[in-house]
Amino acid sequence: MSASAPILRTIYTGPFVHSASLSELEICENGFIGVDENGIIAFVEKESNLEAVQERHSWQDAIPVHLKGNAFLFPGFIDTHTHAPQHPNNGLFGKTTLLDWLQKYTFPMESSFTDLKRAEAIYRNFVSRTLSHGTTTAAYYATIHVPATNLLADICLARGQRALVGRVCMNSDLSPEYYRDASVSQSVVDSKASIDYVRSIDPKGSIVRPVVTPRFAPSCTTECLTEIGKLAKDEDAFIQTHISENKGEIALVKELFPSSKSYTDVYDTHNLLTPKTILAHAIHLSTEERKTILARGSSLSHCPCSNTAITSGCAPIRELLDEGHTIGLGTDVSGGFHPSILENVRHAIWTSRHLALQSELGDKAKLSTEEALYLATRGGAAVVGLADKVGGFDVGKEFDAQLIDLGNVEAGGSNDSQFDAGPVDMFGWESWPEKVEKWVYAGDDRNTTAVWVRGRLVHKTRRYVGAQANGVATP
Amino acid sequence: MSASAPILRTIYTGPFVHSASLSELEICENGFIGVDENGIIAFVEKESNLEAVQERHSWQDAIPVHLKGNAFLFPGFIDTHTHAPQHPNNGLFGKTTLLDWLQKYTFPMESSFTDLKRAEAIYRNFVSRTLSHGTTTAAYYATIHVPATNLLADICLARGQRALVGRVCMNSDLSPEYYRDASVSQSVVDSKASIDYVRSIDPKGSIVRPVVTPRFAPSCTTECLTEIGKLAKDEDAFIQTHISENKGEIALVKELFPSSKSYTDVYDTHNLLTPKTILAHAIHLSTEERKTILARGSSLSHCPCSNTAITSGCAPIRELLDEGHTIGLGTDVSGGFHPSILENVRHAIWTSRHLALQSELGDKAKLSTEEALYLATRGGAAVVGLADKVGGFDVGKEFDAQLIDLGNVEAGGSNDSQFDAGPVDMFGWESWPEKVEKWVYAGDDRNTTAVWVRGRLVHKTRRYVGAQANGVATP
Repeated sequence: MSASAPILRTIYTGPFVHSASLSELEICENGFIGVDENGIIAFVEKESNLEAVQERHSWQDAIPVHLKGNAFLFPGFIDTHTHAPQHPNNGLFGKTTLLDWLQKYTFPMESSFTDLKRAEAIYRNFVSRTLSHGTTTAAYYATIHVPATNLLADICLARGQRALVGRVCMNSDLSPEYYRDASVSQSVVDSKASIDYVRSIDPKGSIVRPVVTPRFAPSCTTECLTEIGKLAKDEDAFIQTHISENKGEIALVKELFPSSKSYTDVYDTHNLLTPKTILAHAIHLSTEERKTILARGSSLSHCPCSNTAITSGCAPIRELLDEGHTIGLGTDVSGGFHPSILENVRHAIWTSRHLALQSELGDKAKLSTEEALYLATRGGAAVVGLADKVGGFDVGKEFDAQLIDLGNVEAGGSNDSQFDAGPVDMFGWESWPEKVEKWVYAGDDRNTTAVWVRGRLVHKTRRYVGAQANGVATP
Repeated sequence: MSASAPILRTIYTGPFVHSASLSELEICENGFIGVDENGIIAFVEKESNLEAVQERHSWQDAIPVHLKGNAFLFPGFIDTHTHAPQHPNNGLFGKTTLLDWLQKYTFPMESSFTDLKRAEAIYRNFVSRTLSHGTTTAAYYATIHVPATNLLADICLARGQRALVGRVCMNSDLSPEYYRDASVSQSVVDSKASIDYVRSIDPKGSIVRPVVTPRFAPSCTTECLTEIGKLAKDEDAFIQTHISENKGEIALVKELFPSSKSYTDVYDTHNLLTPKTILAHAIHLSTEERKTILARGSSLSHCPCSNTAITSGCAPIRELLDEGHTIGLGTDVSGGFHPSILENVRHAIWTSRHLALQSELGDKAKLSTEEALYLATRGGAAVVGLADKVGGFDVGKEFDAQLIDLGNVEAGGSNDSQFDAGPVDMFGWESWPEKVEKWVYAGDDRNTTAVWVRGRLVHKTRRYVGAQANGVATP
């Protein structure tokens, strides 16, 4: 599972599923995906047979991986917004909403990342967790600490998980004295140090890339935002921050930046809205703000688990999609309570149903299963600047994939109730669209039995290893 | 795991958690629960030691079960509303809402239960599934078929899961010709036959009890409802049905029963509202309807996963609790997409947060973690008529419990990412309230390693068996 092990030309034979477009899912029951030594998808064939495919491409030496049973390949998930150091706080939010939650749970946890041993345990565990949920790419917020941030980048690179890794900038007195940048220059110098380090360990940015990360407007002074905007421009770097998550937060921004027209305007006037900017939440934006974001080409990260858990609101994703915004999903651990993008696929749908119930839009507010899966893959890929590289099984893209294995209900049902194959019950009469729907609404990490990034196996469960021993679903 | 194996006097030593009241959770870190040969809780002691407890109760011969690590006992969950034959449709609802969902998914599936082999496979699987999620009591809707309904009761009795088992009555032409009672007398005769059978296999109703089950008002003619009301009275039986789930459904009821004042009034005028009546959903009730239900002493089953999934609405549970209603949680498989009450605990909280976002009540609409757990245990016990028997660890109650084991993050974090202990990450510094909160918001069936009903072990995972071999958490 080393990220540096060589890979061999491989033909994955069996069903695959991916987004053909925002509203269409392609389910190919009899597919052949050829992945070359560089992890690039060399060909995608449908309705053929292995020998013919091998001959057609002169790939007789390629290793076939046969998918058997209720198994299919799906593109790796892309998490466009998450906070790795908050992982131990998952599920802890009590009765708080955004601003008191930050003070009670978040800042005390993040400030402890001066301790590199602690940081290592948490980051290793979190990267393992997100890989186990099929996340092949994540946009991570780290903390203000350069060594711990760099360590997170090391771990992602070693494990082979694509990542944007951001050292957090926060110099205003919203943050407690024990956890904030001492000065604007410290914000800039430390951010630059982390950018340089991440680029030194992966010069081409094939796996890890740096991201300039002003926490959110209230965490930074206007001087800090100005300098951070300059840094991002000088470094031609990605930028990530939060926007319009909570009404109290919006009021605070108005108070802190009285000369700005809006929350969006704060970022815009500090040159932080670029085509490489990822804005998380975007729940309560005005029409004008949406237009500005669209005009700048910035992207949105929708974090439905978080928005419900800390009662932030329901982002109007269906409308934002219609307006042409680029949108992905984010787990927002630990405002969100789950590191899984699949859980957020479901919650994106639930949130849209709550919008349908409460707004004049009615059913028009609803996201379909297809749309939510698009956001989790191709949508997310566009948000993190990888639209041409990952998100679907297209020739020329890199092979970032998860093997979804749904298992089978034993004939006659079971009295044993071990359910090692996970939470989905397949009785054998389901159509392929139903298999996919059952996975979306009832599946979990137990169904993600193997994960690849750039053609390299980066996670495998014991069930996958067992199948390997039996010559199924593996070389 | 046979339901008829003898049980021995046992002292469970270690942490236990249960509801002290609607708003308070009791977490006892050092508890001793003595369970006698009949599965009755003989004593509950706190902050003592095993020898002293054994001596005080002259229970030196009792078998001690030691809980170790991040493990605690929690009362078994009570599912107050679910449809066992719809289990294979879990996760399948597409773009439908209630009335078209019934026609497209539900009736075709349920009608297939003339095939007893098929029924057996599905029911055995479903009872195993619900047990594995810690459900020790369930109120099941079966189908219109007497043999398959009786088989469900047999399976529950054999597996030792408490159940209300209801043969569904539906004679109106809302249901397709291929799946409805041929006449009012068939509704009555078949329902009576199933009641008699269930009482014959468990005369005291210790594990399985019958429940009169008119599907919902639109499924039954007024004559049928009248006769079913009489049957329930004659048999002194529980009644379960649906109420006020969806606005289209409410309009339909108004059309079908023009002389009734309301949906509630339809049931009331047919003598179907009794202290033994369970009404599922109750989303859009008027103030007057709520008063009638309260006056009749009928109970409510809140099904938040279902209500969100098929866009029915948000039941105002916080208000209903304040008014004094008796309320439990229901999974409502397969309108709901998950057989787990824990998932519905979370969704009860999410639904209440969406109500808080959209209604004038604001934060007053929110259910707390404590309240949602109460609904899942003591609330549900009251709904199914077992308030004096189960729902908490009180002397004189029967021991229905689940062992929650949260595991431990390996020192240094893991590069392995097998996560056999389940989805919760315990780093070792969590307080007990935080452990419980992490389980509630991030846990799943992997954390429920053993389940007891009336003191008898009815489900155990391999992890529990492994612990048993090591002398931990077991005799």
